[in-house]
Amino acid sequence: MTHSDASTTPSDWTVYKFGGSSLADPACIRRVVNIISDQQSAETGPLAVVVSAMKGVTDKLLTLAERAPGADAMEEDLVGLRTDQREVVTELLPVDQAAPLLRTLDQDINDLTDVLRATHLMRTAPDTVQDLVAGYGEIWSARTLAQCLQAEGYNARFVDARDVVTVTHGQLGPVVDWERTRERLTALRESFDERDGGSPDVLVITGFIASTPDGVPTTLGRNGSDFSAAIFAALLEAMELHIWSDVNGVMSADPRYVPDAQQLDTLSYEEAMELAYFGARIIHPRTLQPVLEHEIPVTIRNTFASDHPGTRIHLDGEPTDGGLNDAVKGFSTIDNVALLNLEGTGMIGVPGIARRLFSALEDADISVIVISQGSSEHSICFAVPEDQADRARQATEEAFYSERHQGQVKDVDVTRNCSVLAVVGDGMSGTPGVASTFFGALGKAGVNVRAIAQGASERNISAVVDGADAQRALRAAHAGFYLSART
Amino acid sequence: MTHSDASTTPSDWTVYKFGGSSLADPACIRRVVNIISDQQSAETGPLAVVVSAMKGVTDKLLTLAERAPGADAMEEDLVGLRTDQREVVTELLPVDQAAPLLRTLDQDINDLTDVLRATHLMRTAPDTVQDLVAGYGEIWSARTLAQCLQAEGYNARFVDARDVVTVTHGQLGPVVDWERTRERLTALRESFDERDGGSPDVLVITGFIASTPDGVPTTLGRNGSDFSAAIFAALLEAMELHIWSDVNGVMSADPRYVPDAQQLDTLSYEEAMELAYFGARIIHPRTLQPVLEHEIPVTIRNTFASDHPGTRIHLDGEPTDGGLNDAVKGFSTIDNVALLNLEGTGMIGVPGIARRLFSALEDADISVIVISQGSSEHSICFAVPEDQADRARQATEEAFYSERHQGQVKDVDVTRNCSVLAVVGDGMSGTPGVASTFFGALGKAGVNVRAIAQGASERNISAVVDGADAQRALRAAHAGFYLSART
Amino acid sequence: MTHSDASTTPSDWTVYKFGGSSLADPACIRRVVNIISDQQSAETGPLAVVVSAMKGVTDKLLTLAERAPGADAMEEDLVGLRTDQREVVTELLPVDQAAPLLRTLDQDINDLTDVLRATHLMRTAPDTVQDLVAGYGEIWSARTLAQCLQAEGYNARFVDARDVVTVTHGQLGPVVDWERTRERLTALRESFDERDGGSPDVLVITGFIASTPDGVPTTLGRNGSDFSAAIFAALLEAMELHIWSDVNGVMSADPRYVPDAQQLDTLSYEEAMELAYFGARIIHPRTLQPVLEHEIPVTIRNTFASDHPGTRIHLDGEPTDGGLNDAVKGFSTIDNVALLNLEGTGMIGVPGIARRLFSALEDADISVIVISQGSSEHSICFAVPEDQADRARQATEEAFYSERHQGQVKDVDVTRNCSVLAVVGDGMSGTPGVASTFFGALGKAGVNVRAIAQGASERNISAVVDGADAQRALRAAHAGFYLSART
Amino acid sequence: MTHSDASTTPSDWTVYKFGGSSLADPACIRRVVNIISDQQSAETGPLAVVVSAMKGVTDKLLTLAERAPGADAMEEDLVGLRTDQREVVTELLPVDQAAPLLRTLDQDINDLTDVLRATHLMRTAPDTVQDLVAGYGEIWSARTLAQCLQAEGYNARFVDARDVVTVTHGQLGPVVDWERTRERLTALRESFDERDGGSPDVLVITGFIASTPDGVPTTLGRNGSDFSAAIFAALLEAMELHIWSDVNGVMSADPRYVPDAQQLDTLSYEEAMELAYFGARIIHPRTLQPVLEHEIPVTIRNTFASDHPGTRIHLDGEPTDGGLNDAVKGFSTIDNVALLNLEGTGMIGVPGIARRLFSALEDADISVIVISQGSSEHSICFAVPEDQADRARQATEEAFYSERHQGQVKDVDVTRNCSVLAVVGDGMSGTPGVASTFFGALGKAGVNVRAIAQGASERNISAVVDGADAQRALRAAHAGFYLSART
Repeated sequence: MTHSDASTTPSDWTVYKFGGSSLADPACIRRVVNIISDQQSAETGPLAVVVSAMKGVTDKLLTLAERAPGADAMEEDLVGLRTDQREVVTELLPVDQAAPLLRTLDQDINDLTDVLRATHLMRTAPDTVQDLVAGYGEIWSARTLAQCLQAEGYNARFVDARDVVTVTHGQLGPVVDWERTRERLTALRESFDERDGGSPDVLVITGFIASTPDGVPTTLGRNGSDFSAAIFAALLEAMELHIWSDVNGVMSADPRYVPDAQQLDTLSYEEAMELAYFGARIIHPRTLQPVLEHEIPVTIRNTFASDHPGTRIHLDGEPTDGGLNDAVKGFSTIDNVALLNLEGTGMIGVPGIARRLFSALEDADISVIVISQGSSEHSICFAVPEDQADRARQATEEAFYSERHQGQVKDVDVTRNCSVLAVVGDGMSGTPGVASTFFGALGKAGVNVRAIAQGASERNISAVVDGADAQRALRAAHAGFYLSART
Repeated sequence: MTHSDASTTPSDWTVYKFGGSSLADPACIRRVVNIISDQQSAETGPLAVVVSAMKGVTDKLLTLAERAPGADAMEEDLVGLRTDQREVVTELLPVDQAAPLLRTLDQDINDLTDVLRATHLMRTAPDTVQDLVAGYGEIWSARTLAQCLQAEGYNARFVDARDVVTVTHGQLGPVVDWERTRERLTALRESFDERDGGSPDVLVITGFIASTPDGVPTTLGRNGSDFSAAIFAALLEAMELHIWSDVNGVMSADPRYVPDAQQLDTLSYEEAMELAYFGARIIHPRTLQPVLEHEIPVTIRNTFASDHPGTRIHLDGEPTDGGLNDAVKGFSTIDNVALLNLEGTGMIGVPGIARRLFSALEDADISVIVISQGSSEHSICFAVPEDQADRARQATEEAFYSERHQGQVKDVDVTRNCSVLAVVGDGMSGTPGVASTFFGALGKAGVNVRAIAQGASERNISAVVDGADAQRALRAAHAGFYLSART
Repeated sequence: MTHSDASTTPSDWTVYKFGGSSLADPACIRRVVNIISDQQSAETGPLAVVVSAMKGVTDKLLTLAERAPGADAMEEDLVGLRTDQREVVTELLPVDQAAPLLRTLDQDINDLTDVLRATHLMRTAPDTVQDLVAGYGEIWSARTLAQCLQAEGYNARFVDARDVVTVTHGQLGPVVDWERTRERLTALRESFDERDGGSPDVLVITGFIASTPDGVPTTLGRNGSDFSAAIFAALLEAMELHIWSDVNGVMSADPRYVPDAQQLDTLSYEEAMELAYFGARIIHPRTLQPVLEHEIPVTIRNTFASDHPGTRIHLDGEPTDGGLNDAVKGFSTIDNVALLNLEGTGMIGVPGIARRLFSALEDADISVIVISQGSSEHSICFAVPEDQADRARQATEEAFYSERHQGQVKDVDVTRNCSVLAVVGDGMSGTPGVASTFFGALGKAGVNVRAIAQGASERNISAVVDGADAQRALRAAHAGFYLSART
Repeated sequence: MTHSDASTTPSDWTVYKFGGSSLADPACIRRVVNIISDQQSAETGPLAVVVSAMKGVTDKLLTLAERAPGADAMEEDLVGLRTDQREVVTELLPVDQAAPLLRTLDQDINDLTDVLRATHLMRTAPDTVQDLVAGYGEIWSARTLAQCLQAEGYNARFVDARDVVTVTHGQLGPVVDWERTRERLTALRESFDERDGGSPDVLVITGFIASTPDGVPTTLGRNGSDFSAAIFAALLEAMELHIWSDVNGVMSADPRYVPDAQQLDTLSYEEAMELAYFGARIIHPRTLQPVLEHEIPVTIRNTFASDHPGTRIHLDGEPTDGGLNDAVKGFSTIDNVALLNLEGTGMIGVPGIARRLFSALEDADISVIVISQGSSEHSICFAVPEDQADRARQATEEAFYSERHQGQVKDVDVTRNCSVLAVVGDGMSGTPGVASTFFGALGKAGVNVRAIAQGASERNISAVVDGADAQRALRAAHAGFYLSART
């Protein structure tokens, strides 16, 4: 089964996901407990809470795994980790409720010690070691939160997602085995019912970790906890998924560079995906896929301002007034990009130039960020991450070796230290003047545009500019759309 | 040998090329004789004159060849052709000088009759028949012009290019066998010298036709006479090549659509190539290659206004004042274009999407005019000739069959009846504001821009617009750069 | 449609095919008339007679077409051809019946003259010219035979197969468009019925020639008349197809080399195909395909000994007594073969060696006759026509360039001047001792066997031997099976 | 560097390799000590002794690693291993010399415990775990033997090959980094010299194990100890390499099936490679490569009969008397083979059939044992391991899907339960009658031969026979060459 078996009627479940910064310390965890209490008081239905590790814990664990092959004694670091976790537990819970958690913690630390010792003997940390070690953070945070909720009187249950979520690792990353995952969740929920004489009100679920069909612990990779949350939202056919973070929602641009950046109330899935690519503080598009299939709305919210409505991502765009400023939602930049140009008279009308170019880039494992070939067909340009520029140039030149030799194709030209500036918005389609406003703003700011691509979906215009101009360009473009109209 | 063996010192030869409209009737031919007289009077050196067939003759010949398999009696058409040619000859030349030309013409008509009869029996006209038949027009016009020049007292010689230019037919069109061609020209010139006790002052050379290494008559394809002229310019290491046509030179846009279009004094090779792609009345870039390698300047001139300096195409751009209006040279459109969009969440970060797409398009023999993939990586769009749109869509959908099936890629979206509008100019590179002016003009004119591509060579911005908006967009863009500044 | 639409009930038609040697002169033609009379007297049903050109005529015509591009005057040769045909006609037929044939002949000669003149002007003879010219031989022989049969009182009709058989040319040779061909035959037969008030008893059909879907004359290539006969047998759902030649049937080996060679009474299609590959005097397997699909038996017969039953080729083998000598039917050799060997320690267990080798050979357009790779996997050998040996070696060495460079693969070893000796017979399968007898005979004769291949169909053992040993090996092998048992 | 840098002058080193059965128990180890003493007494130079693990130890270790993910308590097994090793050490050595070995052993057991515990937590045993665990056997046997030799007064040193042999893992298995390996050996030997004031006389080296360029423990795979021995022979430019095993050398056939099998005195490298493929008790051809490049002779000897000269493998064959029985060296069988046959009239003359077939088989990861295509070109047959037969058939049928659909190719025929019988010998080349004797013997024994391949290197004839006939065929073939002549 490749799909998550999208069905139509949502259940009354809600899914919350709390990131590491929302669980950074005991105070944060209490804040989360309060947010959950509010939800439970509203009596809208049961809640699945997917948690990341406490801020910093995963990094410490991974550092241990990385250093283990070469380092002889890791005891100190392990002691540090143990002490930190103990403090969190003892601060949050009375002694009697803390005790079982602390015993389990000690067993975990012992296991970690053995694993790191084995890693040292192997002189390398296989992926399985890293996946195993990396997962302790989520287990600790989920166990702790579940215990805190029980202490408050909620029927809350800890769920180790490795007992539910089954994935295989494909070329594109983890692929959920929905059938098996669904079966395992059903079995787990039945076991809860039997033991408790009733379904728990709150499931506290480890994000990030999963297991393979053989039961080997694994992880869902970067942004894995978001993906976990989307998986459980799909499994439970949830009404809503809330991603709790430390910002009020999605901004129109990175506020570090654009002081006038505005918070967006709503965003379409498509806009979210376009902006997501820029590494903005939004969930990654792949993580959206399970909720997208089930048309479950996603809201980005702020743990530290839980009254703020956040930014809501929904399937269909709200009505807009059709003006220019509604046409555009966000701006973002990708820095450290190199622009390559393949050019030559011999390219005109040659079928297969593009195929040959992209085969070579694929074989050389190059990420291509922007492609642009204008109507003259005798040059094609593309942007790649700057650290892949030399490899990309070499691959391209080899692929056109004979044409370059015969003078039909020139040397591949590389412009380093570029940035890609993108403007994103569903409403751009059918709104004349967006390109004009965008490039007008860049022109006024004296920004030289090295390459442009706007695809037919008309939700994104990408401009390649000099890295030195990138922030200025971002501010100018943002001002071009937002300032004039809204001030 | 793949190159034309570029050498450095030019000879004192000049090459003129006259197209069919410059040789449309006896009056035209006399005009050409005068232009040649002027050149000879200037005593700058010998002249090679490459001629097309008289206007309309090649079409008539090809029609004969095409109709021969099915049509029984072609005598009438042949009689018509013979009468036309006889009239031209008798009007231009006194009886005694016309006589030998008329005898040769009758022999040609007899040969044509046999060939068309054989074609009828074969019920098909093989390429060799078409190539043979199509070449009579150039032979007749060159023989006639040579005789006229002799009648004026010039030491002019008719050259059948099939005795000189040797080509093979490659995937990209005819490939000149320079070594053999050079040898054959040398041998021919020596035979002239022996017979005449001196080199001819003017060579009148048939354009368009050539022969294979086996001596089989062939042609140089579309724009073949321009290519012939460039080949002879390279062979003779000419100082200059003048392409005589019926316009004063290259315009900044098609004057039929843009009344304010201006004539361009100079143009770089690169600009000429960019504009050439649009089918403007400029020589085709492939024909430029031999003169480009020898750095021979090319001038586009008007037979009917021979005093006008025309448009000069040279290797390096002249100094410009750096202003915006010098940054841009010309505008052009490609109509009847369809825009295709491949989009899907499953595309993000997938290596090889571009390779797979362009392999499929190559296999389906699709011409891709514009490619644009923005930074979000989850859509890629491209423009193709409208009549290839269905084929392109089908090929693309088949290539991503399984992804579409699994929902990772959406159906391929096709927008028909689009046009590509391109703005071209070497000076665009490094001149901020060109994109701004361009899209500003389009925005003000209310033109919706569906896709954009600007490559790193920064000599071309291509915008895909609705076909219905194309002329308005062209005028608006042109006005945006030219009107404001120069009026 | 790819099939000839095999149906089950045969009609009462019989198809005869007469080759060029059966129609060499007027005496031969009279012999053919008698054979047809015998068939008609037997009253078994109507007869379709497919004829080749008279011996030597096609060669003369093709020589004319080949020489035409370079030769100015071909009149003499044409006059010679005309005289020969006139003599045949006047010798066979009374003046009044000869007259219309002679008039048509003169028109044909005029057409040929025009075509050859056109060819001269084109300086090359395109395929269409050759196909047109080559077909006159069959037209002349069929017209003449039809007229002779009419003179004898038979309701015989001349059929120009170009009005019936429609083929396209694929990679593997001509492909019959059965649907169109069937329609055209039906239309032609209806037109005969209308004109004559009854179906003709004998159709005299030109072999070898056909037309394309556009009506362009073409040919069926080598062995084309056999293919024509098989096509008409399939179209008419004939009971039998007789291929009349100048031998009594298929021999167990080439009697020039094996004096003891025996005539075979019966042969399976499969055996015929195996032996056919050796260029023995049997019809080519491709020509068998239409009759094979309709399970129409084919008999090879001798025009010059029409009482001899010939060799009958049928779908299922007759019962044999199971002995060794029935296991084997025929022996044949392919001479001028080179044996190549690719060997190296680096080959062991390498997947894809075979793929890479055969890709290289395919790209270099090499015919591979025998392949043999034994169980050690570290060498693979194959035989190719000797004149392709250098090309094959070069292609192979290039394909394994890096392995050879690194010493994992040795230089490719070439043994020239080899022959392939094959022993063929359906009964070999399941008969132990065939290989023993075969190699025993070769061993006794002191023949060194360089390579061996026997495939799982067990109808063919191929041995590569030195060319100098080939005839001795053939005789020894033949004697090993035939002599001992049957003398 | 791809080569082992073959040089010409051998040093005075000798390399011995002892397999697991030669080190099965304390008595065996004493026997090995005696063999080494004899070599040292002969004063021919220093000795490198490469050892496998004691018989059974590696299997036990790998079983531990395999069971660890699922099994909770492995202590018992570890205790067993420890006890066994302790017993060997204490039996062979006095207490004071045993003590340090026992201490090291305990440390190793502790490490193993940690590693197995980590594996249990990971629920899988990554390759690195397996490689680490598997290597302890060689370390224990080498340490023990070195200590025993020191106890006998020899200047013997233990060498952990992971400190010397550096390999990367390529598609074809481990690739030695000769440059780095050589440097590390030189450094190690210098460190020995410094410490001891003189080079050791005997190096006792762990076979099988090595390390990656990053220092990660790895193994050389199956037959790894032989490969280790060949690597050290090449590194030391040894005069000789002796592979000590439990047989007197290579036999002419497997004595379990052929009671008359004879021991071979000499064998060429090529013959050894041919026979090796059959899994006979000979070193694997890949392990020969380093010694082959340095032309170091290899002798297969019997630890349990150290006076027996064994079988010597040398670069050039010894002179033979040219008779039939010298032409052939050995016989062997591969059982559980399936024979596939691709057949069809549409295959004749089709270029690329072989390429397409082998591409399909390669993609399906099929091992092809025998290939045979006879001269008729309309069938090609190949043998594969029986358990790959269905996959191979499916892959083949898919590759020729359209041809099968159109009737040009029949269904792929599979004959299961076959064996390949091969006869091997350098002298076969140029000796007529080998095939005759071979197939004569099979014929007399009533063995039906289903497919045959003999390549041009003429060192191997492979016959595919029914599995049920395989042993009878082997005996008959062996008798055909050996019995008659030598009895």
